Amino acid sequence: MAFELAQQGYGAVSPNPYVGAILVKEGEIIGRGYHQRAGEAHAEVNAVKDAQAQGYDVSGATLYVTLEPCCFTGKTPACTDLILRNGITRVVTAMEDPNPKVAGQGHQILRNAGIEVETNLAVEQGQALLEIFICNQLQKRTFVTLKAALSLDGKLATQTGDSQWITGSEARKKAHYYRGLHDAILIGKGTLLADNPSLTVRYGFETKAPIRILLLNNFAGITSEMIRTYAFFDTGLAPSWIFFDQHYPPESELQTLLRAQGIKLISLTDTQPQTLLAALYAQGVMSLFIEGGAQIYDAFISANLVDEYLLFYGPRLIGNPNALELWRNSPVTVLEKAPRLEITETCHCGESVLMIAKNQGPNNCTNIVTKES
Amino acid sequence: MAFELAQQGYGAVSPNPYVGAILVKEGEIIGRGYHQRAGEAHAEVNAVKDAQAQGYDVSGATLYVTLEPCCFTGKTPACTDLILRNGITRVVTAMEDPNPKVAGQGHQILRNAGIEVETNLAVEQGQALLEIFICNQLQKRTFVTLKAALSLDGKLATQTGDSQWITGSEARKKAHYYRGLHDAILIGKGTLLADNPSLTVRYGFETKAPIRILLLNNFAGITSEMIRTYAFFDTGLAPSWIFFDQHYPPESELQTLLRAQGIKLISLTDTQPQTLLAALYAQGVMSLFIEGGAQIYDAFISANLVDEYLLFYGPRLIGNPNALELWRNSPVTVLEKAPRLEITETCHCGESVLMIAKNQGPNNCTNIVTKES
Repeated sequence: MAFELAQQGYGAVSPNPYVGAILVKEGEIIGRGYHQRAGEAHAEVNAVKDAQAQGYDVSGATLYVTLEPCCFTGKTPACTDLILRNGITRVVTAMEDPNPKVAGQGHQILRNAGIEVETNLAVEQGQALLEIFICNQLQKRTFVTLKAALSLDGKLATQTGDSQWITGSEARKKAHYYRGLHDAILIGKGTLLADNPSLTVRYGFETKAPIRILLLNNFAGITSEMIRTYAFFDTGLAPSWIFFDQHYPPESELQTLLRAQGIKLISLTDTQPQTLLAALYAQGVMSLFIEGGAQIYDAFISANLVDEYLLFYGPRLIGNPNALELWRNSPVTVLEKAPRLEITETCHCGESVLMIAKNQGPNNCTNIVTKES
Repeated sequence: MAFELAQQGYGAVSPNPYVGAILVKEGEIIGRGYHQRAGEAHAEVNAVKDAQAQGYDVSGATLYVTLEPCCFTGKTPACTDLILRNGITRVVTAMEDPNPKVAGQGHQILRNAGIEVETNLAVEQGQALLEIFICNQLQKRTFVTLKAALSLDGKLATQTGDSQWITGSEARKKAHYYRGLHDAILIGKGTLLADNPSLTVRYGFETKAPIRILLLNNFAGITSEMIRTYAFFDTGLAPSWIFFDQHYPPESELQTLLRAQGIKLISLTDTQPQTLLAALYAQGVMSLFIEGGAQIYDAFISANLVDEYLLFYGPRLIGNPNALELWRNSPVTVLEKAPRLEITETCHCGESVLMIAKNQGPNNCTNIVTKES
């Protein structure tokens, strides 16, 4: 139940983790809470408030929480203080907080104060929920998800570039759910020009709009007309940022127009994936959702910078080596050098199938084993 | 339960259908039977025998059977006679028999004799079980299954041909189950030379050994040494047939050696898939399991002659347009011309995932709607 509560923070808590909490006293649930929004109250606070609002005295209660309570004062006070102050006598947690400022100290403070603490009861489930947060905390970098729609034989489009639609509407709706879990969505110029996508989160998954990011080697082909009419440049829909190679800035007229529309322009020393990711992390973007096209996919896979793949397979065969594919410039010649992923989930989305696969390479964020597990 | 019984005929009933039957009297199961082997007793006969062996009188019983009882004398007498003779008063079936010699007449004969008949109660499940039989009966041709192991991005091997192993051992074991469902297994010369496969059914799925089939444009590269040592040519393991282009027969020495090993040699006017399939059907091969390599896949997909795809995806990315792929010579340029499949099933096999997809094209065998459904 605490995990279900945690997930209600969908799309609103970054850079914080999703956390849910339940207070139980004498076999009865007396309070429920979750972290609703970055900068606002933690789950534990909301659970205590909920209990008190219903007239319960939380002293002597057990707190079930999906993550170790924090023990430092940030934007809000330390949850360990809240627990002690309110006379909660037992704390049960799913996992330790990977945040180095906590990392077991929250549990220790509670134990030292005589509180019964049970922990690491659902580490795997906790890590799955917090994969972005764990990556941010332990590796100090932006978590990267790559989403692609493929034919069963792995093609992104036919040899003439036809790709609408390989998957059906249910798969496309499901992709909106995943968009909403991320701080930002990345596309390249090819996708902008071919599809004029809005990159907003719709179909019932509406949330704090992720930042839309366009990565450009140069501005060739981006016209004033486009800036006035394409959805990406309408910052009324969602924020739009353009990262570009500092050697090829936009001409001043274009630059003026872009700024007038409220678009943020950020120059990079180069447009390599690692350069972009460093700039994004510096800007506070904790997670990136890559939507294509083929060149962006190729660059991020080649750089081994994808943490998670969301591969939607449509019920088609396309064939032909000239058809667009996921990883054109792969150097792989022997199988043991082929990136090894872990397929963690498959689900049917209408006529299509989603496979979720996680990177098992050295940069992998999710297989963190907490100290006590 | 009748369907579970039917499946016990695994690999032994071709060219007949899998059928299971249960006899129920006064709320008690009094007999169970299934069709065990081509040419032997039908499921209904075995159920009646089972009941009688236990001392039950089947008169007044209800017969539950996965397929309409037959009404003609073939290798065994008509089951409708058996039902009438034994005083069974009610018959419940999953579906009609697609065999034009039956096709509702079995039900009709029973109804005319005053027996209560309920039918078409599990048509979808029945069709799934009998897809090979339905294809044979209605289209008078061999059912074709294509099995391939792919990376998540649809590659059969790296650009240097390395493919062992894209999928893990659990996926490879699962493939043996599917081999055993078919009358014959097809490979081309490339797979013979690269892998020296035995093509037998192992890992607990041992059954009547499917015929191993090699399709050759010519005999170049097939040496006497190979014939003495490669598993394919050891007919002690399973029957081996070679289909070859009549314009390029084996030299007499090779021919003598092949025949001496008990290998059947069959010449074709050409080695097109449709030519091979016609010859196979004429030889009584009701189902073909294609195991590769890339050229065989390409030919059968291009000819739109694959009924069912078993795609095993291993947790790897291979990339690169030079890597081997499923359908190299695809002419598809626009998506609406891309073959449309139906993904009917996905399952995790160890670290890999199997997707089963069925052809939705004009040759499709499985979407037969029976008259009464």
